[in-house]
Amino acid sequence: MTLSAQEAHSVKRAPVDDALLPVVLERWSPRSFDSRDVSPTDLKRMFEAARWAPSSFNEQPWRFIVGPRGSETFQKIVSALAVGNQGWAPKAPVLILSVAKTHFSQNNTPNYYALFDLGAASALITLQAAALGLATHQMAGFDHDAARKALGIPEDYAMGSVMALGHQGEPSALPNEKLVAMETAPRTRKPLSEIVLSAWGEPAKLG
Amino acid sequence: MTLSAQEAHSVKRAPVDDALLPVVLERWSPRSFDSRDVSPTDLKRMFEAARWAPSSFNEQPWRFIVGPRGSETFQKIVSALAVGNQGWAPKAPVLILSVAKTHFSQNNTPNYYALFDLGAASALITLQAAALGLATHQMAGFDHDAARKALGIPEDYAMGSVMALGHQGEPSALPNEKLVAMETAPRTRKPLSEIVLSAWGEPAKLG
Repeated sequence: MTLSAQEAHSVKRAPVDDALLPVVLERWSPRSFDSRDVSPTDLKRMFEAARWAPSSFNEQPWRFIVGPRGSETFQKIVSALAVGNQGWAPKAPVLILSVAKTHFSQNNTPNYYALFDLGAASALITLQAAALGLATHQMAGFDHDAARKALGIPEDYAMGSVMALGHQGEPSALPNEKLVAMETAPRTRKPLSEIVLSAWGEPAKLG
Repeated sequence: MTLSAQEAHSVKRAPVDDALLPVVLERWSPRSFDSRDVSPTDLKRMFEAARWAPSSFNEQPWRFIVGPRGSETFQKIVSALAVGNQGWAPKAPVLILSVAKTHFSQNNTPNYYALFDLGAASALITLQAAALGLATHQMAGFDHDAARKALGIPEDYAMGSVMALGHQGEPSALPNEKLVAMETAPRTRKPLSEIVLSAWGEPAKLG
């Protein structure tokens, strides 16, 4: 039997200690969204969170193109999605395409950290969404060139992600069994010993 | 008269609404760190937070090389810092160099999102640090090649940031007036109308 939305949410919660930020533990990336809209106030709050992200030389290279369901922008984003994502993502009430300015505004030199900083700002959106009881799912699976063309993004902006935003829906509403299985499986991550090193090749000893 | 550490912290707080995550509003990037160490338990918590970041195909491209003060790794990171950062960053009790695996482990194809995902994981460290009363300051200002050489980072990892981590110190302890002024000035960001668009060139109407 398929897990309910609430049961799936519990399965996804990271099993770690109470000093960790609750939103970090609770954030995950569902594919099932229900029909509820995101309130304009909450939407604004998510971008407020992104706005306060740190960035190299405070360039703030991030730009977010927001498509509420029914808008032309929403349809253009959907049209660029990979087939696999077209099966579920268009049910979300909001799709957001993020892009990053690749050169510093002050002197037009390349900003190596454009995507790094966009990733940070996007992470803040996902956490602020979780704090508001909303769900996000960022996708790499879209045609960058098609999205650029459909939305008229200038060449000096690098493509970021497409983010689906809304309220988590029932896993059973997903279009196939494989997606249901992914929706209801625990999140997995590498152990800290693989990602935190005291020197290259040497796992750090952590408390 | 120079602001105290606590006064500077209040000045940096983003002036926004109560539904925003407190850590997003309170996180900022001081340059003055006091002599207190970071506990091993707290250090571990920060990487736990990073570990649960989302990433493209769950690749988790992030690696963190941690240098506690007094370690060889700390000295190697310091040696690669830009002169301007060498004036303050070595006072922090921990320096962390982050890097991102540029190719997917499964099939060795390029991972366009390597730095994007590293930026997300790094943002989670900064927020978890803020939740624990710690301060972080990420730097782009270091010699990437020198750091790669000093720390033996393979070519298939892209450089991320150097992060100083510790407890915020007194602004007056900074080595010059310019740094003190930056430490005690409010944080500034672009208005939402410049970063959130309904279509390219059109500011979104937000709630």
